[in-house]
Amino acid sequence: MTTGNFKDALHRFKEGQGKIKALNYATSMLFWDASTGAPKSGADARSKSIGTLSGFGYREVVNEQTEADLNLLIDHLDELDEIDRVSVLDAKREYDKLTKIPMDEFQAYNELISKSAMIWEDAKEKSDFKMFEPYLEKVINYLLKFAEYRGYEGHPYNLYIDDFEPGMSVDQLNVFFDELRGRVVPLLKKIIDKGDAPEVTFLKKDYPKQKQDEASRKLLGLMGFDLERGMLKESVHPFTMGVDIDDVRLTTHYYEDDLASALLSTAHEGGHAIYEQNIDRKLQPTLLATGTSNGIHESQSRIYENNFCKSHAFISHFLPYLKSAFPEPLEGIDVETFYRGINKVEPSFIRIEADELTYSLHIMIRYEIELGLIDGTIKVKDLPAVWNQKVKDYLGIIPKNDAEGVLQDVHWSEGLFGYFPTYALGSAYAAQLAHYMGKEIDIEACLANGDFAPLTKWLNEKVHQYGALKKPNELIELITGERLNSKYYCDYLEEKFSGIYGL
Amino acid sequence: MTTGNFKDALHRFKEGQGKIKALNYATSMLFWDASTGAPKSGADARSKSIGTLSGFGYREVVNEQTEADLNLLIDHLDELDEIDRVSVLDAKREYDKLTKIPMDEFQAYNELISKSAMIWEDAKEKSDFKMFEPYLEKVINYLLKFAEYRGYEGHPYNLYIDDFEPGMSVDQLNVFFDELRGRVVPLLKKIIDKGDAPEVTFLKKDYPKQKQDEASRKLLGLMGFDLERGMLKESVHPFTMGVDIDDVRLTTHYYEDDLASALLSTAHEGGHAIYEQNIDRKLQPTLLATGTSNGIHESQSRIYENNFCKSHAFISHFLPYLKSAFPEPLEGIDVETFYRGINKVEPSFIRIEADELTYSLHIMIRYEIELGLIDGTIKVKDLPAVWNQKVKDYLGIIPKNDAEGVLQDVHWSEGLFGYFPTYALGSAYAAQLAHYMGKEIDIEACLANGDFAPLTKWLNEKVHQYGALKKPNELIELITGERLNSKYYCDYLEEKFSGIYGL
Repeated sequence: MTTGNFKDALHRFKEGQGKIKALNYATSMLFWDASTGAPKSGADARSKSIGTLSGFGYREVVNEQTEADLNLLIDHLDELDEIDRVSVLDAKREYDKLTKIPMDEFQAYNELISKSAMIWEDAKEKSDFKMFEPYLEKVINYLLKFAEYRGYEGHPYNLYIDDFEPGMSVDQLNVFFDELRGRVVPLLKKIIDKGDAPEVTFLKKDYPKQKQDEASRKLLGLMGFDLERGMLKESVHPFTMGVDIDDVRLTTHYYEDDLASALLSTAHEGGHAIYEQNIDRKLQPTLLATGTSNGIHESQSRIYENNFCKSHAFISHFLPYLKSAFPEPLEGIDVETFYRGINKVEPSFIRIEADELTYSLHIMIRYEIELGLIDGTIKVKDLPAVWNQKVKDYLGIIPKNDAEGVLQDVHWSEGLFGYFPTYALGSAYAAQLAHYMGKEIDIEACLANGDFAPLTKWLNEKVHQYGALKKPNELIELITGERLNSKYYCDYLEEKFSGIYGL
Repeated sequence: MTTGNFKDALHRFKEGQGKIKALNYATSMLFWDASTGAPKSGADARSKSIGTLSGFGYREVVNEQTEADLNLLIDHLDELDEIDRVSVLDAKREYDKLTKIPMDEFQAYNELISKSAMIWEDAKEKSDFKMFEPYLEKVINYLLKFAEYRGYEGHPYNLYIDDFEPGMSVDQLNVFFDELRGRVVPLLKKIIDKGDAPEVTFLKKDYPKQKQDEASRKLLGLMGFDLERGMLKESVHPFTMGVDIDDVRLTTHYYEDDLASALLSTAHEGGHAIYEQNIDRKLQPTLLATGTSNGIHESQSRIYENNFCKSHAFISHFLPYLKSAFPEPLEGIDVETFYRGINKVEPSFIRIEADELTYSLHIMIRYEIELGLIDGTIKVKDLPAVWNQKVKDYLGIIPKNDAEGVLQDVHWSEGLFGYFPTYALGSAYAAQLAHYMGKEIDIEACLANGDFAPLTKWLNEKVHQYGALKKPNELIELITGERLNSKYYCDYLEEKFSGIYGL
């Protein structure tokens, strides 16, 4: 094997990565277009185009030359610099994911998924889990089978966690959720028992869209999002799209009878967007120029949304502006009232409407069920009962039907197992990062001055710049000297909500 | 050669066409995005993506399998239905265009073009033709050389006309422009001599953007554009993008001190857009689901803009609405004043600002020069003098410098020869179509009622439905029983402007 071969392989590899990046860019733009005003009638043409682009992408990854190059590069890992080494390892993982499953089974699975997602929609509408049950069973059987093809260490669920949070494992998650169960469930119970519900009606008054848009842009500017290298638009469901360091886009959704929704979505997506904007430029030509995992990405959205924007300190800074923008609905509202209102805790059935405290309990329910379904300790047919029991145990309420219970999320119908835990990981990483940031910066003082710059700069240096170069465990350890530690998250929740509810 | 082979080839051919369509869709969307609000900073990532998509497109067209398939299909043309036959012939022409020129020369040419366009921009800014001269000479040398590689019948310029207006020739264009020269130049002279300039100041008052947008949408609706299967946005330069029959987009540009500009752009682009929306659905999966040529496309924009929207009859219908939308600036303006103002004739230096009458004279100047440059009767170094002489002869004015003279258009710097004539062809086709439409429909009565439906329906049936299935000469002959006949255009101009100027 000559050096020439190796150099050629590396050159081809980089070229191939560039092509995949270019295809991803186009696909993302089609999605952006579809979500921000494209005529509905164009859906067929768009999906044909996306399908074709994905076909080109597949053939770019899966072919004999790419396989040979990858194997050669894997043999020479030591000779690669860090960026190339991580890129090659990521590509190898992606390659295995695409090739270890026999093509005919993968196609059959994709057909099942597309059917299953439709059936789920129908079942949810009719609130009838029985309709969805056989499909979910088939999906899980495929996932178990695919785990055997793909190979895994320890628990088969590790494989699916790893798809969204590289390196994370059932062992780590069990420790994490055990502490959550032990500390957050009792905390919630105390809050409910106290029965001291904050005032929130002032948040549900008349808030004109145009003014909300201005406030969202004002907030983004404060947070440190560069509106010259990106854009904010409206879509039905808020999302962030980081197609390139120099073109990061986010959306929010305005409700004219709700002040908090759009602003908090903007803070949340703004956190994702600031991450994408501040990745080191040396990663720009590679596929590493993006967030490193779902969980770390979510930590950036959560830290801006919850730890920063919903803090007492920041509200004390931002409320005067809001009162000048919305004088009537906010007349007579003081910082304390606003702070308590926007942080109100109330157990509810629907995850996506949950408050900061109960949110992770919704995730815990899903984690326990996914784990049980994968290791066989929970049967699909028992899901509605299992679900309702867990909601009762953790949230103290009982769903009236499957639609507001086990059928509420689309994820399982699409085979997305291992995704949910990353939502809770995001909040936990956020708390851990904020704890260590607090050792270097007076966060409260910054927020009270509306000065996000030192906070954003800290995150730029510690988290953002690395993109996907450092994987989650490595990154968190690099910054905090330890791996994920749920203590910080539970401490944070206890302190914050004990304060609000005077416990 | 077995039937099986032939069927397989046809199947692969159609699949390939579908892929090219899907790539075109994505590329168009990136262009749309860039033109309607994307952050400027994303230009690099976008151009990389477009470059990659174009590379995939090239390899889809130029490969041994496609060549073999195309040749096999050409041998079996008789066995194909009309859609497949025309698709194969179009693909063969495209294939030859891409492959008959040696790759290294084509690359060198592309590099030259990209340099030349930059130099042109600089030269225009400095109003210095000498800077641009050596580049234009090289561009023309390449075009002459490429014509030899590609092959042509008769005049080498035929090849370049054919690239934009399939089947059109120097012989046809000479007849066309001879009549224009003989009739429109004297007509303009009479108008200038009469010296009776219409009032236009009322068009340049305060017209709020929001109201102009409403008026543009109102106009599009009247014309028959289906806003549910497309969209209108704003961009710097108005354009139409027909990515799919069910997703046709157009833009306009609002100037708050000008009523006519955005409305006429909307009428113009609306004509293009209605064409794209009304192509027969059986062509939807093919590359024939688009306008058949630049000239025929331009006929649809011109017929709506000039023949319909700028007519006395339609203004009598639309002015009351405009007066209700813009009561102050239009106070006291009657139909006659509005009609004369919006149709004002005034020789000017810049093509894109020209009125309906002088526009085709600007085109004639460019046609004569392109023809002379290609057949060697005009030298590049003499261009400024030749240009100014022609402007003097036809428009009666003399450019003060190269920037408002020979350097005003980007086209030649990009090697776009043969493109300009199609602008004038569009107006001529429009007049010919309107003439024959008038034999079946009382156009004036329809327009006076704001009822475009019968007119649009006629165009749907005669022109739009065919997409690129019928080529220009064939289409015009099918509809009017004769080929392009400049008589109708000259008659129309004489009648309209003699009326306005009381000649």
